[in-house]
Amino acid sequence: MLNEAAILAARGARKAINMEDVEEAATKVKLGPEKKRLQTKEERRMTAYHEAGHAVVSYNLPQMDPVHRVSIVSRGLAMGYTMIPPKKDRYTETQSHLLETIVALLGGRAAEQLIFNEFTGGAASDIDQATRIARRMVVDFGMSKLGPTYLGPQIETTEYGRNFIQPTEVSPEMQAKVDAEIKRIADESYQQALEILKKNKRKLDLVAEKLVEQETIDGDEFQKLMKPKISKK
Amino acid sequence: MLNEAAILAARGARKAINMEDVEEAATKVKLGPEKKRLQTKEERRMTAYHEAGHAVVSYNLPQMDPVHRVSIVSRGLAMGYTMIPPKKDRYTETQSHLLETIVALLGGRAAEQLIFNEFTGGAASDIDQATRIARRMVVDFGMSKLGPTYLGPQIETTEYGRNFIQPTEVSPEMQAKVDAEIKRIADESYQQALEILKKNKRKLDLVAEKLVEQETIDGDEFQKLMKPKISKK
Amino acid sequence: MLNEAAILAARGARKAINMEDVEEAATKVKLGPEKKRLQTKEERRMTAYHEAGHAVVSYNLPQMDPVHRVSIVSRGLAMGYTMIPPKKDRYTETQSHLLETIVALLGGRAAEQLIFNEFTGGAASDIDQATRIARRMVVDFGMSKLGPTYLGPQIETTEYGRNFIQPTEVSPEMQAKVDAEIKRIADESYQQALEILKKNKRKLDLVAEKLVEQETIDGDEFQKLMKPKISKK
Amino acid sequence: MLNEAAILAARGARKAINMEDVEEAATKVKLGPEKKRLQTKEERRMTAYHEAGHAVVSYNLPQMDPVHRVSIVSRGLAMGYTMIPPKKDRYTETQSHLLETIVALLGGRAAEQLIFNEFTGGAASDIDQATRIARRMVVDFGMSKLGPTYLGPQIETTEYGRNFIQPTEVSPEMQAKVDAEIKRIADESYQQALEILKKNKRKLDLVAEKLVEQETIDGDEFQKLMKPKISKK
Amino acid sequence: MLNEAAILAARGARKAINMEDVEEAATKVKLGPEKKRLQTKEERRMTAYHEAGHAVVSYNLPQMDPVHRVSIVSRGLAMGYTMIPPKKDRYTETQSHLLETIVALLGGRAAEQLIFNEFTGGAASDIDQATRIARRMVVDFGMSKLGPTYLGPQIETTEYGRNFIQPTEVSPEMQAKVDAEIKRIADESYQQALEILKKNKRKLDLVAEKLVEQETIDGDEFQKLMKPKISKK
Amino acid sequence: MLNEAAILAARGARKAINMEDVEEAATKVKLGPEKKRLQTKEERRMTAYHEAGHAVVSYNLPQMDPVHRVSIVSRGLAMGYTMIPPKKDRYTETQSHLLETIVALLGGRAAEQLIFNEFTGGAASDIDQATRIARRMVVDFGMSKLGPTYLGPQIETTEYGRNFIQPTEVSPEMQAKVDAEIKRIADESYQQALEILKKNKRKLDLVAEKLVEQETIDGDEFQKLMKPKISKK
Repeated sequence: MLNEAAILAARGARKAINMEDVEEAATKVKLGPEKKRLQTKEERRMTAYHEAGHAVVSYNLPQMDPVHRVSIVSRGLAMGYTMIPPKKDRYTETQSHLLETIVALLGGRAAEQLIFNEFTGGAASDIDQATRIARRMVVDFGMSKLGPTYLGPQIETTEYGRNFIQPTEVSPEMQAKVDAEIKRIADESYQQALEILKKNKRKLDLVAEKLVEQETIDGDEFQKLMKPKISKK
Repeated sequence: MLNEAAILAARGARKAINMEDVEEAATKVKLGPEKKRLQTKEERRMTAYHEAGHAVVSYNLPQMDPVHRVSIVSRGLAMGYTMIPPKKDRYTETQSHLLETIVALLGGRAAEQLIFNEFTGGAASDIDQATRIARRMVVDFGMSKLGPTYLGPQIETTEYGRNFIQPTEVSPEMQAKVDAEIKRIADESYQQALEILKKNKRKLDLVAEKLVEQETIDGDEFQKLMKPKISKK
Repeated sequence: MLNEAAILAARGARKAINMEDVEEAATKVKLGPEKKRLQTKEERRMTAYHEAGHAVVSYNLPQMDPVHRVSIVSRGLAMGYTMIPPKKDRYTETQSHLLETIVALLGGRAAEQLIFNEFTGGAASDIDQATRIARRMVVDFGMSKLGPTYLGPQIETTEYGRNFIQPTEVSPEMQAKVDAEIKRIADESYQQALEILKKNKRKLDLVAEKLVEQETIDGDEFQKLMKPKISKK
Repeated sequence: MLNEAAILAARGARKAINMEDVEEAATKVKLGPEKKRLQTKEERRMTAYHEAGHAVVSYNLPQMDPVHRVSIVSRGLAMGYTMIPPKKDRYTETQSHLLETIVALLGGRAAEQLIFNEFTGGAASDIDQATRIARRMVVDFGMSKLGPTYLGPQIETTEYGRNFIQPTEVSPEMQAKVDAEIKRIADESYQQALEILKKNKRKLDLVAEKLVEQETIDGDEFQKLMKPKISKK
Repeated sequence: MLNEAAILAARGARKAINMEDVEEAATKVKLGPEKKRLQTKEERRMTAYHEAGHAVVSYNLPQMDPVHRVSIVSRGLAMGYTMIPPKKDRYTETQSHLLETIVALLGGRAAEQLIFNEFTGGAASDIDQATRIARRMVVDFGMSKLGPTYLGPQIETTEYGRNFIQPTEVSPEMQAKVDAEIKRIADESYQQALEILKKNKRKLDLVAEKLVEQETIDGDEFQKLMKPKISKK
Repeated sequence: MLNEAAILAARGARKAINMEDVEEAATKVKLGPEKKRLQTKEERRMTAYHEAGHAVVSYNLPQMDPVHRVSIVSRGLAMGYTMIPPKKDRYTETQSHLLETIVALLGGRAAEQLIFNEFTGGAASDIDQATRIARRMVVDFGMSKLGPTYLGPQIETTEYGRNFIQPTEVSPEMQAKVDAEIKRIADESYQQALEILKKNKRKLDLVAEKLVEQETIDGDEFQKLMKPKISKK
């Protein structure tokens, strides 16, 4: 679980890996080599806003680790990526950090809706990861309204020594409650991501425009972009 | 997914492939050699309207690629085909383009109803493809009223290292919601296809009649047929 | 599908095959050799009315091909047979022809009810075939109130390259709607068969009596029997 | 089906076989050799009434073949048996004969209730057979309120040549209707058996007493016992 | 079934076997060798009351065979045992004897509740056996409110000679009715066991105390303990 | 079952093993070698409160065995552990002891909520174990409102000697009742754990602080910490 938690945290939103020095090497191994794809200008803008969405949402969540890099350079199957490596090993996960991770994962899709009123298939892996985390919260970790009961299938061997193995499944009725909780977590997290982006629309534009312009933004530059302008008044 | 999206886009409505030069060769490989079948005049008319339905609906959808060829020459199992090759690689799919693809796929069947108040079994593969796209929109892409939750089966390995693998299925209740969304998307898309054909009934007749007459219409000719007549006033 | 459609059409009601010259040979191959069974007079009458039911209903449906032969000579497992070979290849099926086929298939059973207020197990294969056609109309062809959605199981391979294959099933709720539609189609078709036989009761009696008398009626003779008597006034 | 129908008819109620000359031999082969079991007097009485129930109910049903022998000599697993061999080959089954068969099968259990207000496990195979017949009537033969639809699982191979085989199951909702019809047929048949035995209680006692006395009653003797006494007035 | 019935009867409540002479040998084979376990005084009391519960309840049921031995000597997995061997072979089971067997099986647990207001895991095998008997009564024997219908899965081979085998399952709705009947039988039997023990509380104490004192009570001694004291008045 | 009960008891809350002399050896074998992990101060505090929760709840339950050691030294996957070895072999489990075991298992999570209003993924194995015990109470032991019926799957071989094996499953409706009972037991036990910790908040703080300070508390020291201070007045 630590392993998985670490991976989830590492991935942050859309393909991100823990590395400092061997960065390029690691990036290549994990995400595949850079791929120059002939995207239209519109496609580049959508990718830029998607990644900016992950990054800006992450920035505004108290427990998320800092964004290490945002990019719209295609690697492997992904059109872009946002790297949010964990600052330290996490041995166990907390409910609040898992929820923030889900919010950050759905930040890309929220940006698509906010800016283009459109959805792309590129959010599929974000949705899949967010759902997996939400499922574990509900089924394994007792972190939902359903309380501290394990709600998944279990192997049972009867007490009479028969070698008959039958997984114990929860009832369709309980399954429906599990599904409803997972959906509730995802829906509320998505709303939270939307709220953050609405409040930080200018920053979102700023990051997306920079990405279209220079393709990649490193951590330091990203932090500067996100800081409130002093001259605002 | 890109691959699949490309295939979907390529297929457009009823068997269409990306090719420019090696067209005949490719056509033969994909659709099989031409087959002269002894269709009745009525059967030829129905096939002509079915293919014209795909083509005319496609033409009237803003994001669909241009129709490359419409034909009622039998190839393989198909009685006719409409080729709508993608103009460029699509790396990701958008909700609006997927919806238009479904509308175009159901255009053949809509023409059957509009003209003959009849349905043919030939629409089966159109319906199958449209349903597959709608299912992915709902289950994988979060492009429905059910929101950004992955709604399909998932493999889970429990955290205790047991090698027991059990797919996590959504509950019958959530499955029913997924089905209802898929049906809603298909029904609304079908109504949209019907609307387009009602508004463009003359053009539909024109294309169908040309098809009965000369069996195949190439892209340029099709574009000309579709243009509004200047002398209309 | 063409193949299947052809078979359905060929079978018409209760074992019928396409042949002109090699008729006896073909009949033997398909239905098995003639079997003299010691049926009681009552059993022969029931078989005669059952086959006459198929034939008379078929005759009164506009799209059904002409009856080629009706017989109460046992062949293989069947007590009798009605041959309705397709006049030409059907490359695709229409909703209206499929519905008429179902009505004709249930014509045997309708005759049993009308004349004897009794049902025989001999209608089992008619019911099975009618149900299969109705199921395809609903599930594959979008020819029901459920509209243009494919409503059967689908294989899905997830987008992450896992070789995990899981058929997607429709929900129990949608399955129930599919079942209700199939039942509705069968029930309405059965009522239609009953109506036809009520209106043509004299013809039904005529054919059944002729069958009891001479065991087999060929196409021409059948057509003559069905024609309205001029001297009726 | 003819085969099965023949077997059903042959079995009549509780183990009965078609034979005239090679009777003992056949009996031994089918039911196993005679077994002298040390039954208590009460057990013998219960067996006698159970078998008498089958025989007397059968006698009072117009379409049932005549009882050939009733016995409380144990053979194989059965405590007794009632032989009702078919008088002639039945090539197809009618609804009315199948219903009478179910009534006769439940006659043994009805006698247990009427006389002892008790049920024995010995009725299990009668119940199983009656249920199988009722299920076929509902699922295969369209002989229930559910009408002429086949209501069981079907293999389907999709039209695209995939070698994916998936049985089509009816929905849980339709399954529930099938179960309710089977139960209704069994319950009504049981009530009918009870009614027959109540009306023929004297004859039931007569046969049961004779069975306790002499263990076996042959067909002729049984017929005589069942005839109304002339000296009754 | 006779076999199973015999086993059930033999087992009576909690591990009991039919034997007279080779008693010790048989006991060892069936229950395993004696095991001296270091139970606390309280554990011994609970075991004593549990076994006394089986024995006293059995004694007060008219059809149960006489108790042959009660013991709190551990054998195999069991903490104690009550032997109720069948006095004679039972070739068939009656509803009333099966019900009494269930009541006796639940007598141990009823004693736990009555005396300690506590339940032990030791009743698990009693509950399992009682449930199996109740299930057979409902599913196979037609001995419940659901009447004479077989309510379990059935293998079916379709009539067209396909080698496709599919078990017919009852619907979830009917399954729920079966479960409710099984539960009703178990609950009512448990209440009956409780009633018997409340009325015979003194005898229960007597047997349990004797068991704590001398570990084993043989049949004759048990019968004497159960007889009403003459000097009571 | 004794085996399992022993294991459950031994484990107490979160990884605890029966050992006195070979303690270190056994600890290493069971929990793995000590692992120095770089936890933050906050993580150490959360682990300390989690383990203190198990220990303090256990202490306040009358039937739980005494706590042998509490520690926040990481071993294997666990961040900490609380050892509650059984004082003696338990041959059978009682309802009241099983319930207390569940309460103690959920004591860690209750402490997390009470102190941090947060949940950690570290409670997953506690929840899993608590659910397994609750399931057995409901399904196997008849220790719930559902009464003395076995509520799990059963293998059945039909009485006709067919080698067809089919597990009997309880209906979805009964499964839902089982799930509801398991959830009720877990929820009530969790509330009880919360109540105990609220009443003993000072002791909880004391133990957690001591753990942060010295990492491990042995049984004797723990008992002293838990004793009421005499100078309280």
